[in-house]
Amino acid sequence: MTGLGMPPATDLPSHPRFVSLEGGEGAGKTTVLNALGDALQAEGLEVVRTREPGGTPLAEMIRELLLDPRHEPAAPETELLLMFAARAQHVREVIAPALARGAWVISDRFTDSSHAYQGGGRGLDPGLIAGLERCVVGLQPGLTLLLDIGVSQGRERTRGRDLEFAGGAPDRIEGERDEFFERVRATYRARAAAEPERFRVLDASRPAAEVAAEAVARLQAWRSRA
Amino acid sequence: MTGLGMPPATDLPSHPRFVSLEGGEGAGKTTVLNALGDALQAEGLEVVRTREPGGTPLAEMIRELLLDPRHEPAAPETELLLMFAARAQHVREVIAPALARGAWVISDRFTDSSHAYQGGGRGLDPGLIAGLERCVVGLQPGLTLLLDIGVSQGRERTRGRDLEFAGGAPDRIEGERDEFFERVRATYRARAAAEPERFRVLDASRPAAEVAAEAVARLQAWRSRA
Ligand SMILES: Nc1ncnc2c1ncn2[C@@H]1O[C@H](COP(=O)(O)OP(=O)(O)OP(=O)(O)O)[C@@H](O)[C@H]1O
Ligand SMILES: Nc1ncnc2c1ncn2[C@@H]1O[C@H](COP(=O)(O)OP(=O)(O)OP(=O)(O)O)[C@@H](O)[C@H]1O
Ligand SMILES: [Mg+2]
Ligand SMILES: [Mg+2]
Repeated sequence: MTGLGMPPATDLPSHPRFVSLEGGEGAGKTTVLNALGDALQAEGLEVVRTREPGGTPLAEMIRELLLDPRHEPAAPETELLLMFAARAQHVREVIAPALARGAWVISDRFTDSSHAYQGGGRGLDPGLIAGLERCVVGLQPGLTLLLDIGVSQGRERTRGRDLEFAGGAPDRIEGERDEFFERVRATYRARAAAEPERFRVLDASRPAAEVAAEAVARLQAWRSRA
Repeated sequence: MTGLGMPPATDLPSHPRFVSLEGGEGAGKTTVLNALGDALQAEGLEVVRTREPGGTPLAEMIRELLLDPRHEPAAPETELLLMFAARAQHVREVIAPALARGAWVISDRFTDSSHAYQGGGRGLDPGLIAGLERCVVGLQPGLTLLLDIGVSQGRERTRGRDLEFAGGAPDRIEGERDEFFERVRATYRARAAAEPERFRVLDASRPAAEVAAEAVARLQAWRSRA
């Protein structure tokens, strides 16, 4: 039997105030997150801006472990379980309580990143990932914006930043080769095509202000859906 | 659907040179491990002595994260996934290569500890734990020695050590209450009863030398099985 013998997790409950941003390196997720958060906050709404892996003190420590190039490389399965350990914590400590009190939650990456990076990129069984999603996450964003960009253009954008911070050393995942990121991108696009209700794909090769404006328009259109 | 919808993992391949030691706090696992290792090494055999959570640099860093009382408490699911992340790494980096080159491996704790502590103790779904065991571990010890001891007697034994090292502060799991450890003990005993081929239960309330001698005798009897 492959994986955990689970069907795809498309029937997981999704939350209408939970938005995730997805995309490869340098797609502009952080930039768009801030635009979406500002738009909602301008209406007086409470917005929790968060990111994965991370979002709680323990989950941020798991993030450091994941990206730290000092210890031996993590096996793909180890990387997957660390990602889901951080996510299990993030959901329980931050996302679920915020949604329960009526806030919006915008997350820079969520479970789709595990499908794209650990599934598409590392080649792990999609059934195992879907089983973990179902058993330890149990929740989907209502809206996921996929910021789609060519691999080399995205990596070009992050290059300046990487040289500026962190001494220019790429982390564990940033150090992968282009083929890896091509598989990540293809997996993202396939997931978006399979779940058109939840996903909106944005052409992220355009100038930041244009992408951000379209993202805000997509969010508002989605909020005023019938 | 509960768990990962998987059957119990009793049909996982087991390895004839892989021995695990299980039991509650202060049962004497570390003490017995050394006796078993010494007995095998006296015959000129290569023995890898290891422990969980841990056993590789990354897995030991995960162990520190798990037991560190400085960050917020880990949700039960987070704790489970961190345990299996460390185990996935330990199997791939240490246990499987050692068995492949012909060495013996003796591990202070293995997957049964997750069933006992995260399953019995924390109350997580046994089906989820069995699914992780099947998907990311894929291997069982040939022989598991369960060092069975009353909860208060075991904790009494560790008390001296805890005061001696680490400033006497109990770690995240040691700080649990007696009811937790009673559930751990009951789960261990139920697993041993369900898998008599793999398990040997030792009365660990006796003096250390007696327990160690019986453990060595059990190992040798098991090695000379038909
Ligand atoms: N549309 C854009 N055009 C040009 N540059 C952009 C655009 N969006 C973001 N950038 C710049 O590209 C870099 C990466 O952007 P950002 O951090 O938002 O992307 P990201 O998807 O969050 O990347 P990462 O996954 O590496 O965190 C930043 O220096 C940012 O200012
Ligand atoms: N049979 C025994 N009788 C009395 N004391 C013992 C016995 N076995 C071990 N001890 C002592 O009890 C303490 C705990 O033993 P040990 O570390 O071997 O147990 P353990 O099962 O590995 O415990 P832990 O899970 O806390 O690591 C040590 O101080 C050890 O010397
Ligand atoms: Mg970013
Ligand atoms: Mg010990």
